[in-house]
Amino acid sequence: MRAHPQFRYEEVANLVVSLVDSGTLSPGSRAPSLREISKQQQVSLSTALQAYRLLEDRGVLEARPQSGHYVTSRAALRLEPPAITNPPGRPAAVVISPTLSKVMQYSVDPRLVPLGGAIPSAELLATARLDRFLARAARTKGASYNTYTEPRGDLRLRQEIARRAVRWGTAVSPEDIVITSGCMEAIALALSIVTRPGATVAIESPTYFGLLRSLEALGLKVLELPTDAADGIDLAALKNVLERKGVKTCLFSSSFNNPLGSTMPSENKLKVLALLARYRATLIEDDINGDIYFGPQRPVPFMALERSANNVIYCSSFSKTVAPGYRIGWMVTKTAAQMERALERKLAFTLSGPPLLQAAFADFLASGGYDNHLRRIRRVFEYTIGQMSRTVERSFPAGTKVSRPAGSFVLWLELPKSVRTAALFDEALKNGICFVPGDAFSVSGRYGHCLRLSGAHGWNERIEKGVVKLGDLASAAATRSAAASLSKR
Amino acid sequence: MRAHPQFRYEEVANLVVSLVDSGTLSPGSRAPSLREISKQQQVSLSTALQAYRLLEDRGVLEARPQSGHYVTSRAALRLEPPAITNPPGRPAAVVISPTLSKVMQYSVDPRLVPLGGAIPSAELLATARLDRFLARAARTKGASYNTYTEPRGDLRLRQEIARRAVRWGTAVSPEDIVITSGCMEAIALALSIVTRPGATVAIESPTYFGLLRSLEALGLKVLELPTDAADGIDLAALKNVLERKGVKTCLFSSSFNNPLGSTMPSENKLKVLALLARYRATLIEDDINGDIYFGPQRPVPFMALERSANNVIYCSSFSKTVAPGYRIGWMVTKTAAQMERALERKLAFTLSGPPLLQAAFADFLASGGYDNHLRRIRRVFEYTIGQMSRTVERSFPAGTKVSRPAGSFVLWLELPKSVRTAALFDEALKNGICFVPGDAFSVSGRYGHCLRLSGAHGWNERIEKGVVKLGDLASAAATRSAAASLSKR
Repeated sequence: MRAHPQFRYEEVANLVVSLVDSGTLSPGSRAPSLREISKQQQVSLSTALQAYRLLEDRGVLEARPQSGHYVTSRAALRLEPPAITNPPGRPAAVVISPTLSKVMQYSVDPRLVPLGGAIPSAELLATARLDRFLARAARTKGASYNTYTEPRGDLRLRQEIARRAVRWGTAVSPEDIVITSGCMEAIALALSIVTRPGATVAIESPTYFGLLRSLEALGLKVLELPTDAADGIDLAALKNVLERKGVKTCLFSSSFNNPLGSTMPSENKLKVLALLARYRATLIEDDINGDIYFGPQRPVPFMALERSANNVIYCSSFSKTVAPGYRIGWMVTKTAAQMERALERKLAFTLSGPPLLQAAFADFLASGGYDNHLRRIRRVFEYTIGQMSRTVERSFPAGTKVSRPAGSFVLWLELPKSVRTAALFDEALKNGICFVPGDAFSVSGRYGHCLRLSGAHGWNERIEKGVVKLGDLASAAATRSAAASLSKR
Repeated sequence: MRAHPQFRYEEVANLVVSLVDSGTLSPGSRAPSLREISKQQQVSLSTALQAYRLLEDRGVLEARPQSGHYVTSRAALRLEPPAITNPPGRPAAVVISPTLSKVMQYSVDPRLVPLGGAIPSAELLATARLDRFLARAARTKGASYNTYTEPRGDLRLRQEIARRAVRWGTAVSPEDIVITSGCMEAIALALSIVTRPGATVAIESPTYFGLLRSLEALGLKVLELPTDAADGIDLAALKNVLERKGVKTCLFSSSFNNPLGSTMPSENKLKVLALLARYRATLIEDDINGDIYFGPQRPVPFMALERSANNVIYCSSFSKTVAPGYRIGWMVTKTAAQMERALERKLAFTLSGPPLLQAAFADFLASGGYDNHLRRIRRVFEYTIGQMSRTVERSFPAGTKVSRPAGSFVLWLELPKSVRTAALFDEALKNGICFVPGDAFSVSGRYGHCLRLSGAHGWNERIEKGVVKLGDLASAAATRSAAASLSKR
């Protein structure tokens, strides 16, 4: 049984892509004919045709007249993925990189090619339907919603969220959920109820700078774990910090980590949960990207895999998928004492979210509008990431490594060691391009030659030219530094 | 020049009330005739008539056929106001009264007579006009506002807020303002940028329990100051704690303190500011009730009186006047370093408020809708507080003292010492009535015989019956405890 409904032709297309990725179909080889695929997969010819058209759009197949479909030379990415990271193995105070505030300022500047901020563009999100629900709620329910919500937030919204969690196998009660101002407040709440200032939190390395900001504001230290761009954190390293460093709190991504794009396989997640139980540690999981998966199945969050203990606090929001402007996130805990502390803190700091927005969002979820929307933007982001990866391949200097995320919309690039992406950022600005230098994603200073590209605005000519130009600038920087290091000898 | 535009007939009515309050016109005496007042005040006969009708509505005057208008016997309140409070003069950890969570739960129960919560009822607030602005914004600007605001919040909203501040004499730049999730987030932000856990904050006693919740969550201690129901905190006590206890942070109400209703006269505020400057301490002022004044002039906040130094952080919101459900508050600081820390914390915890709500609110303010609305609800709350005071006078046990707030919509009652209002609360619940026992407003335990009545739902027969019944229950409790103390002798 599939966790999510999906169009049959997308399944067929995904199957072909997996044949390419696994090497069964090599670039240049002939793909199965429409008749063959229709027979093998028991789909109609028109469904097979739809699948192949999708694959043409994605640049995986090309049609040759009178001859059938062939795997394109671009179908398989030749760039290496980054190696597993190797951060220092000791706790460190969080000091926010000064690069970051500069980057933040530019990441909303509409004059720049928007490869910086990871906020989907308003055009892509197309919230007309959601906004109609809000306009209707404002017209018809304005007065009755002009008050505070109960501390957990609007009940119907929590019911809708709980209903969605059931689909990926978690029994969550609306009572286990507290609505927050985005995923950020959810994570800050979670951190504040399980830590005290001065405590150490184990995190992925590199990690989203917004999390570093919350950790800093709460006076917490971080211990960065080696993290693989495919499989996520290194289990042996995790065991070590739990066993030897007395770390009691972890903050990990559920899937499509920002910026690496990594997702821990479920068997690894189960091992993490076993370690947490053994060392009585708590995991705060950030599932903000979970709904933006390219494959046939949604990755399963830690909370859904946890059976015996209650060591997981789950955080997510709708900010990456449909409505950053609605500021609706949520935190889930099945531990009553944690929920009580979370509500106390919520009352002490923000009291309540705007009930009208929550009511409108509940209407939108109940209408099925969100699921339709997700199907569309998953395609958009998969296409964007595919195109962006291929453009990186042809424009960036030799030796560049690039992540291969199976969801969300950011790429992590590791450039030749000599290239300083903070300096590249200044050059890019002069050329009207924004991105985020690697420094912003760690307190270790190890990612000065890395950068994150965001596909939050989808794929178009302007974006493509920006990536190409940035690749040229990076290549020039690599050549310059190679020449400089030669002349020093 | 008047600080605020106001209808002429309201000014005339306020003048007559002040003549009653000052004793120039005593109960039962004949008020000036319409012709006299028209001539004295240089207003038309119809304006004078409007003023007298307002005074009849307020129960200050009564018309006697063929004879003119007379001051009613109820016009002057005979109940004493509470004496200045006398809290213990040492720092104390904040422990939230267990009464409070019980009260919170019941204060939103529509089956109870709503004398508990201080959230204006949706019917009173009548937000149809504001909601229309929201509906329009959702229809026409939804997509462009579906993103994060800049960290300070929507610029137009900040401009409108700055424009209003000018009216009461403060030059505030939109750059000095950060939009928050209600006044609560503003105060929590302010506290978090000027204190560290374990520090002591000087507060009014009694004080709003929501502030105690924020202080507790931030790990702060409180030092409660003697506070007068008319004039606010005692200046000698403030000097003492600044000089001898090394207190560096104060959190005071700008006007109409919740629950006492006190407002410091401007000359006292100037003395407070001089003390702050001398001892290098910071004042966080809570001006959430400032727009709900009954008199001719808005009380001037501390920030507007401050000329030489920058020791004041100003906090307010629209939650008490028009839109608790919109969750829009703001914090003002003129110190760049404080603003920077505030924005860092905002980014770390809630990131941004919903831009669509902020844009709609800016439209509403620009339209003049807010000022019209304020004029209306000031009248409603003044009437409510007047009627409620008189009902307390005739229903509560002898010896009850009651505050005489010149704004906002709560009354503070000091009952005979023997009456325990926590026990009275349980009895009131059985009788379908909610209020807030005095325990909730202090960590000192000194207000167990006090209570707060809220006029947030305006005045009607159900409210009146509730106050009368509560008075009967309090009288019975007073009689019982008097009898018990006699039988013990």
